[in-house]
This record gives sequence, C-alpha cells and structure tokens, in this order.
Amino acid sequence: MPDSAHNSEPHLWVKISLGDAGEVGPGKIALLRLIREHRSIAGAARAMNMSYRRAWLLINELNQIFGQPVLSTFLGGRTHGGAELTPLGEALIARFDSISSRAEAAVREELSALAAEVRSSD
Amino acid sequence: MPDSAHNSEPHLWVKISLGDAGEVGPGKIALLRLIREHRSIAGAARAMNMSYRRAWLLINELNQIFGQPVLSTFLGGRTHGGAELTPLGEALIARFDSISSRAEAAVREELSALAAEVRSSD
Repeated sequence: MPDSAHNSEPHLWVKISLGDAGEVGPGKIALLRLIREHRSIAGAARAMNMSYRRAWLLINELNQIFGQPVLSTFLGGRTHGGAELTPLGEALIARFDSISSRAEAAVREELSALAAEVRSSD
Repeated sequence: MPDSAHNSEPHLWVKISLGDAGEVGPGKIALLRLIREHRSIAGAARAMNMSYRRAWLLINELNQIFGQPVLSTFLGGRTHGGAELTPLGEALIARFDSISSRAEAAVREELSALAAEVRSSD
C-alpha cells in the first residue's frame, strides 16, 4: 500500500463489509500476505510498523468472521513462534484480489475521467 | 455509513486514490451530503460527530485535489456562516455514487459467495 500512495495513477481501494460479521480490507489482506512471506506474525507486524498485539487482533477478527483460523502457528520459531496461512487464509487473499481487480476494471473509465478533472485543474 | 454497519448484507466500500493528488472516500462524500442537507459546515460536522476543524480540513483537501472549491460559503447564517455545494461538489457526489454502485454491481456474485462462507461457519 505505501507504494500506491506515490503512484500518480487513479486507483480504487475496496473494503468488504460482511455486515455484522465484520470487514475485510486492504490492511488485513496486506497483513496476511506479509505473514505468508515472513512465516511469522511478529515479522509481518514489524514489516507493517504495527504492534504484535494489533496484528494478532486483526488476525483474530478474521478468524471470528469465518469461524475458522486463517493461519496456523507452529512452535520452534523465534519470538512468538512461526505462522503459516491455512487454505482459508490463502483463499481469502485470492478472493479479495479477485474482487478488487474486478471492481477496478468495472470503473476504470470513470476513474480516468475523474483523474482527468484533477489534472485539468493543475 | 452508520446504518450499513448494522446491515447484514455484504457490501463494498470504495475509496478512490487519485495518486499524489489525494483520496476521495465515503467519509468526504458523506460530509458533502450533510453539508448539502444542513447548508452548513458546522451542522454537517455535528451530524458526523466531527470537529468543525476536521470537517473544514476534509473540504479543503477536496478543494486542493480539484483546484476549485467544492462548496461556497455565504454570510448571514448562524455560527461559521452557511454553505452550499458548488456544481463541482454536486458532480463529485454523483461521480462517487456512480463509481461505487458500478464497482459493487461488478462483484455482487463474489460478495455473496464470500458472505455465504461466513454464514456457513456460524
């Protein structure tokens, strides 16, 4: 996400509200991706400049939403142990990416038109 | 927005990043709508439980993004005077609504599938 902030192209961020169950947005998905990369909640939290507790709460929200864990932890790692995504966690990333790119594709022309209005006022 | 938080249907929130220019999301659009309704920045800020200063900063961000004001203020109102949307402000609400509903329509099936995964784990 930090990369996009310096991108001059118009872009759509999506957040999925699942009603009372909760929300799935770019932050939680970025965290899942980093946990996959680092095989560690602590490592992912550091990479996002987020406390371990905050990362754990976000993961717990996802577990609660789906009633199943999005990651499994294993012993033997360094501080806080290691972690890897469950098939549900992997599927959630894929689903979110699919929804994001489909939504963005649907509005690409309107986004470009809006961006042109911004540029025309420079 | 508060209404949707208690809605059990899946729903897409979108935020439009216009690159370095800034972002347009549901909060700024809700504020514009309330200013239209209340004809007052202060009234809209109160309705959103937001400080006048915060509301003013959000409006100023929009003015900066588009290089033109999204609202005009007039004297003679109560505290902080009155305000009404400019044609640009009106067009921005319409554009945002159009982008939101088009994006949501494009992913409706996937949202329902995701929501079913949530419900199936209850």
